[in-house]
Amino acid sequence: MINFQTSPEQYHHWKLKIEGAVATLSMDVQEDETLNEGYKLKLNSYDLGVDIELADAIQRIRFEHPEVRVVVITSLKPRIFCAGANIYMLGTSSHAFKVNFCKFTNETRCAIEDDSAHSGRRYIAALNGTASGGGYELAIACDEIYLVDDGNSAVSLPEVPLLGVLPGTGGLTRLVDKRKIRKDRADVFSTLAEGLKGKRAKDWGLIDDTFPTSKFQESVNGRVDEILSSPNDRATGVGIKLNPIEVEVSDQALEYKYATLTFHREQRYADLTIRGPESRPEMSIEEIEQAGDSFWPLQVYRELDHALLHLRVNESEIGLVCLRTEGEASNVIAVDENLVTHKDHWLVREIILYMGRVLRRLDLTAKSFFSIIEPGSCFAGNLLELVLASDRSYMLNDPDQEVEIKTSEFNAGALPMSNGLTRLQSRFLAEPEKTEEVLARTEPFDTEAADEAGLITFAPDDLDWADEIRLAIEERTSLSPDALTGMEASLRFAGPETMDTKIYGRLTAWQNWIFQRPNAVGEHGALTNYGKPTKAQFDYKRT
Amino acid sequence: MINFQTSPEQYHHWKLKIEGAVATLSMDVQEDETLNEGYKLKLNSYDLGVDIELADAIQRIRFEHPEVRVVVITSLKPRIFCAGANIYMLGTSSHAFKVNFCKFTNETRCAIEDDSAHSGRRYIAALNGTASGGGYELAIACDEIYLVDDGNSAVSLPEVPLLGVLPGTGGLTRLVDKRKIRKDRADVFSTLAEGLKGKRAKDWGLIDDTFPTSKFQESVNGRVDEILSSPNDRATGVGIKLNPIEVEVSDQALEYKYATLTFHREQRYADLTIRGPESRPEMSIEEIEQAGDSFWPLQVYRELDHALLHLRVNESEIGLVCLRTEGEASNVIAVDENLVTHKDHWLVREIILYMGRVLRRLDLTAKSFFSIIEPGSCFAGNLLELVLASDRSYMLNDPDQEVEIKTSEFNAGALPMSNGLTRLQSRFLAEPEKTEEVLARTEPFDTEAADEAGLITFAPDDLDWADEIRLAIEERTSLSPDALTGMEASLRFAGPETMDTKIYGRLTAWQNWIFQRPNAVGEHGALTNYGKPTKAQFDYKRT
Repeated sequence: MINFQTSPEQYHHWKLKIEGAVATLSMDVQEDETLNEGYKLKLNSYDLGVDIELADAIQRIRFEHPEVRVVVITSLKPRIFCAGANIYMLGTSSHAFKVNFCKFTNETRCAIEDDSAHSGRRYIAALNGTASGGGYELAIACDEIYLVDDGNSAVSLPEVPLLGVLPGTGGLTRLVDKRKIRKDRADVFSTLAEGLKGKRAKDWGLIDDTFPTSKFQESVNGRVDEILSSPNDRATGVGIKLNPIEVEVSDQALEYKYATLTFHREQRYADLTIRGPESRPEMSIEEIEQAGDSFWPLQVYRELDHALLHLRVNESEIGLVCLRTEGEASNVIAVDENLVTHKDHWLVREIILYMGRVLRRLDLTAKSFFSIIEPGSCFAGNLLELVLASDRSYMLNDPDQEVEIKTSEFNAGALPMSNGLTRLQSRFLAEPEKTEEVLARTEPFDTEAADEAGLITFAPDDLDWADEIRLAIEERTSLSPDALTGMEASLRFAGPETMDTKIYGRLTAWQNWIFQRPNAVGEHGALTNYGKPTKAQFDYKRT
Repeated sequence: MINFQTSPEQYHHWKLKIEGAVATLSMDVQEDETLNEGYKLKLNSYDLGVDIELADAIQRIRFEHPEVRVVVITSLKPRIFCAGANIYMLGTSSHAFKVNFCKFTNETRCAIEDDSAHSGRRYIAALNGTASGGGYELAIACDEIYLVDDGNSAVSLPEVPLLGVLPGTGGLTRLVDKRKIRKDRADVFSTLAEGLKGKRAKDWGLIDDTFPTSKFQESVNGRVDEILSSPNDRATGVGIKLNPIEVEVSDQALEYKYATLTFHREQRYADLTIRGPESRPEMSIEEIEQAGDSFWPLQVYRELDHALLHLRVNESEIGLVCLRTEGEASNVIAVDENLVTHKDHWLVREIILYMGRVLRRLDLTAKSFFSIIEPGSCFAGNLLELVLASDRSYMLNDPDQEVEIKTSEFNAGALPMSNGLTRLQSRFLAEPEKTEEVLARTEPFDTEAADEAGLITFAPDDLDWADEIRLAIEERTSLSPDALTGMEASLRFAGPETMDTKIYGRLTAWQNWIFQRPNAVGEHGALTNYGKPTKAQFDYKRT
C-alpha cells in the first residue's frame, strides 16, 4: 500500500529550509530509498515517493509558513539539478501505475502554479546543474528559471530521442503554452537529447537567465531580494500545523473522522461517505486559526484528498465510487458563509484554494462517481460540488421524507474546475441563465425542484430506489474500465480548455497511448532497452 | 493502395440527388462493396470506402452545385439510418488503419460543419430509422436532426457498452460541446446500448424533433421549405466541374501537374514539391469560372490534399515529409491578390475555404514536416503557410543566391488552423505584435530578415546546407514514430482549443489509447468478441 502521508522530519529526498520570507526546497534524492524494488534513484531522479514529499512540502509552505513569499527549488547534488522520473522505475512499472504516477506529479506541478497564481508566492528554479526530463518539467512549473553556466549544465527534454515517450508531466504543453516558445524551437529542443545551455537556452526562452558558477548563488539571492523588496499586499500571518491525517485502515474500509470509504470489492465499487460539520458556530478568525487542521472544511477535504489518492493507486479494481453525505445541510452552508466572511484572511484563502484542488483531483480521477442523495444527506454548498462533479446523481423522490440539496456562494466561483468554469456553468452550457437562477434561489431544492432545475440526473421514487441504484451500480461496473476512463475524461470537460486541461487531456492521453506502444514498452522498445547494451528497434509505421 | 478519388457516377453507397436548392444525400450501403475482405457492410454500416464517397459528395455539392442551400442526409434502407462504422472491419484492421480511418471520417464531419458555418448551407439529418454509433455521430455533425417516431427507431452511441471503445468520431465531444447536453445525461446516453427515442431523445437535446412515420417525410420537407423561404444573401452561381485529379503513379513517385511526391523509402522520408503558378494574369471572375478546377489554387490544393491522404494511408513507413516549392513568389502573391479581389464570389469563397481545409489536414497529419527553402522556391502568401505549418524550416543563407519568402493577406486570417488562430498568431504567441509587424512588411524577407523576424527555424550557410539537411532528415527518421506523433500533436496546437481540436486532441488521443487496450482488442476484448458466441472478459483495473 502506497502511503501518501509524510512530513518534513520524515523526508528522505528533500530538505525544506525556512528563513523568514524565503523557503528553500533542496532536492537530495537518496538512491536507495525507493518506493519499490528494482531501481536506484541516481542523479536526483525520482519516483512517486520523492514526489509525495514534494507535494507535502508545497502544501506545508502554504499552511504552515504563510510568511514565505519566495520558494527556491534547487539541488544539493553537485552539477545535477534533477534527472527526471527514474527510467528503470518507469520501465518496471505497470501501465496503470505509470499513468497514476504521471497524474500525481502533474497535480503537484499544477499546485505550484496554483500557489503562485492565487497565493502570490514566487517560485524560483535555481538550476545549479543539469535539469533533464521531469527535472526541467519541474523547473518550468516555477515562475523563473536560472541555470548555472558551468560549461556543462543544460536543460533538456530527452524523452522523445532517448526513451520514445513524451515529456508528459506538462513538459510539451508548458513549452508552447506557458513559456510560449515557438513550436519549431520546441520541436528542436524536444528532440535534442543533450538539450541546450547558456545563451541559446535563454534566447529561446527555455530559461530566464544564466550565471557563471562563481556568481550563481549570489545572483539567485539577488533576484530573491528583488522580489522581497517589491511591493506586497498579500495577507499573511502565523501558520497552522498540518498534523497527520488520522485514518483507521481495515480490509473493508478506511475510517476518517469526517469520511468513511467502504469497499465492496466483489462488486468493484466503494461508498465514500462525507460527514458534515457537527454544528454551526460562527467562528472568528482567531477561532479558525486555533482550530487549525481540525477546522471542518480543512479536515474533511484533507480526508477526501487522501481517500481519492488511496483509491487511485491502492484500489485499482474499484471502478465506481458512490458519493454520500451525512449531516445537516444548514451546517455546511454555515461553514461556507463563515469562510466567505473571512475570505481575505490568508488561512481561509488557503483553505478555499485547497478545497478547489481536491475537487479538481476528483474531476481528474479515473473512477466513475455517482452521487446518492438520500434523507439525512447534506449535499449543500461546497458539498453540492460533489453532486455536480459526479458523472451521475440519484436523488430519492419520497414525499414522506425530506431530501434536499442547496446552493451557497461556494457554487458561484470559489471552486473552479481545471477548465476555469464552475461546475454549474459547465452543467448549464446550453442554458447559461440557469446558473444564475439556481444560485439566486435561497430556499433548498427538494427532489422535484432539483429535477426541474436540472441539478440531478434521476429522481426514483421509494419503490424503485433500491433496485435502481443496485442496477445502476451493477451496470456501471460491468463496462470496460478503459472505455469509461476515456468517456469520463471527455464528458467531464465540456467547454473551454486551459493549459491545465490540455496537460491532463491532450498531452496525457497521447502519453498514455505511447505508454502502451511496443515502440516504447515492447521487448525492443526504447523504454525497455534504456541503459541496456541492446538498442531499441522501432516499427517505423506512423500512426 | 486505397484510392481516394471517386465521383457520383461511381458511388456504390450513396445517391446524390440535386433538386433546385435541395440536395438529398441518401445512404444505401452495398454490403459486398467493401474496401477490404472479411466483412459485410450490413445495416448501412460503413468502412473507409463509404466515407470517401460521402466526403466527395459534400465537396461536389460545394463546387458543382453552389445553388444548394439545404442538404438532407437520409437513408434508403427501411428502419435503419446508419449503424455506424462496421465493427468487423474495425476488428480486423490494424491499429494504424483504425486511427487513420477515424481521422478521415472526423475530417469529413468537420467539412460538413465548415460548409454550414462558412458557406451557409443547412444540413438536415433525416433519420428515417435508427442511427447508432457513427450513424448518430454523422447526424450530430448536421445542423438539425429529425427522428422518425415508429415505436422502434432510436439514436444511440453504443460503443462503450457494446464494444468497449469510444464514440470517437466526434461523438462524445459534440454531445457536450455542440449540442451542449448535460454531462450526466450524456453519460447515461453513452452507456445505454439501446439508446433513446422519441420524446426523451428530444427532451435531452439529442434530436431536434420526432415525427410519426406517416408524417415524417412531409415534416422534413416542411422544415426544408421553411429554410428555403427564409432570407438569404449567400452569393451563388453556376457550379464548376471537379474532374478527376490526374496523377502519374510509379513506385518512386506521384506526379501531379503542380506537385511531385517522391519517396525515399530506405530513408523513410518523402519530398513533396509544390509548383507555383506559371504566370500572373489578373483573372476576372468569368475567367476563374472558366478555368474551373484547373485554376492554380484549386488544382494545386486538390493535388496537395490527395498527396496527404495517400501519404497517411498508403505510405505508413514514411515518417517525414520535406516540403519544397518551385516557382515565382510574385506569381503566388498575384494569385492571392486575385482571390482577395473576388473573395465575395461564391467560387472564390469555396476555393479559399478548401485551401484552409487542406492546410488543416496537413496540421493533423501524423508525419513530421520540414520546409526546405532554397533558391528557386516560392514560399509566399498561401504557400508560406506550408512553412508555418511545418515542424521546422531550413532556409539557405547564401549571399550569392537570392532566397526569399513573403507574406500576403492570406497569412492574416483566410486560412485558420483548427484552433481558430492563424499560423502566424500561433507562432508568435509570446510576441503577438510580431504577427502585425511581419504582415505589415511589403518587401520579401531574405534569409537574414526571415531569421531575424522569427519566421524560420534554421538558416545554414551554403557550406553547411547539404550536411545539415541530411543530418536533420537522418536524425528525425531515427526517432520513435509514436513519440513523434504525440509530440507533434502537442506542439502544433499551442494556444486555445476549439471543438475541432478537442475532437482531434482529447477525444482522439483517448480513443487511440483504448484502441490498443486488451479490453478492446485483446483476445478477450469487447471489439474482438463482438458478434461472437464468446463474451468479452475485462481486466477491471482502472487506469
